[in-house]
Amino acid sequence: MSSASASAQHVSSYDIYDVRQYAFSYKDAQPEKDTSVAARMARHRELYYNRGARRTVEALLIVHVHQHPHVLVLQIGNTFFKLPGGRCRPDESEHDCLYRKLTKRLGPPSFANAATTAVTAAAEDPIRRRVSIGELVAVWYRPNFENLMYPYCPPHITSPKEVRKLYICALPASFEFHVPRNFKMFAVPLFHLYDNPKRYGSHIAKIPEALSRFHFNRV
Amino acid sequence: MSSASASAQHVSSYDIYDVRQYAFSYKDAQPEKDTSVAARMARHRELYYNRGARRTVEALLIVHVHQHPHVLVLQIGNTFFKLPGGRCRPDESEHDCLYRKLTKRLGPPSFANAATTAVTAAAEDPIRRRVSIGELVAVWYRPNFENLMYPYCPPHITSPKEVRKLYICALPASFEFHVPRNFKMFAVPLFHLYDNPKRYGSHIAKIPEALSRFHFNRV
Ligand SMILES: [Zn+2]
Ligand SMILES: [Zn+2]
Ligand SMILES: [Zn+2]
Ligand SMILES: [Zn+2]
Repeated sequence: MSSASASAQHVSSYDIYDVRQYAFSYKDAQPEKDTSVAARMARHRELYYNRGARRTVEALLIVHVHQHPHVLVLQIGNTFFKLPGGRCRPDESEHDCLYRKLTKRLGPPSFANAATTAVTAAAEDPIRRRVSIGELVAVWYRPNFENLMYPYCPPHITSPKEVRKLYICALPASFEFHVPRNFKMFAVPLFHLYDNPKRYGSHIAKIPEALSRFHFNRV
Repeated sequence: MSSASASAQHVSSYDIYDVRQYAFSYKDAQPEKDTSVAARMARHRELYYNRGARRTVEALLIVHVHQHPHVLVLQIGNTFFKLPGGRCRPDESEHDCLYRKLTKRLGPPSFANAATTAVTAAAEDPIRRRVSIGELVAVWYRPNFENLMYPYCPPHITSPKEVRKLYICALPASFEFHVPRNFKMFAVPLFHLYDNPKRYGSHIAKIPEALSRFHFNRV
């Protein structure tokens, strides 16, 4: 099993496993709610006026491919990359939301719909049972209804439109991921993400910076 | 006084104070050992063959200027920026080294030379008494004797030439910094550092990403 600990040298360490320890199978497609950036921003704006700032949580799932750390990322179509995760409901904790989204996106098909509340099926859900949510590694702020996000709240923005938090998750030594048919899942090495915002988008391209302080114990 | 704590939401928080709480005065110049990048790399190479990989530690000292977090950075001449810190001695801990370097660079002149060992004058040194070293926030690796550094150890580099670690430090509510006359010290806002490697160098420009997970309590 995985473990997280902090030593006297202030180093957080996570066990990571060879990608071949994991199985990936497909399940039914999960269509995206928006088909364009414009549509996404329009819906975001509408929700903002009803519910206030959007809170988003995403998971960093790390494996290794012959010893190099890789991040599991999802691709929709042939261009857009995203991390597993999503928007918190108004009264939902980040923790509960991240489990709900991970289960929906990557859990067995039988749990994808059942996991609509924090307590549902928690006892049997393999995501909740075997993946543990670790430390907060990065926070991104969206000051306006635009694609640009920043790793700080820009000056004189009293109410950012979205606050997005990335949590590292500890994976078990083996696991079966169930990926919706309209997504592809890739294990991308840190050196491929680094300084590559054109391909991955800025917050995914900056994952290496956010992970630099961790020690990965390659099992 | 400053405090560091982690809540149930995994958020590390630090108290930061208005820059006007701090005093800055000059002390004798501390000439750099190398006058060019080429000279620095040549000396680095020589030390590497005698002592192995260089271990470097640097301090992130954070203040606020009308509520916006700013990082204290040193400028040498009119171009080159650096953080307070430096190279660990072969058997020195990162902790001891960071205090030694902070005292030498920013402590009262009477301590600048005295603080040559970990135990010297520890009881009276205002840096050791009042600045506390907090969490590791970023690690940078130099694979070759070149300026390029990465936030991960690149593949197939078994022995990086330098490993540089950035620690956040908790400042007291007021303090007097003593800056060598050949340096200038600036409080640079995160939004100025961000995406500005041409001016600040890559590892300083990426401080905002490394700090995004922290909550700064502006006192
Ligand atoms: Zn938690
Ligand atoms: Zn302002
Ligand atoms: Zn310590
Ligand atoms: Zn390899």
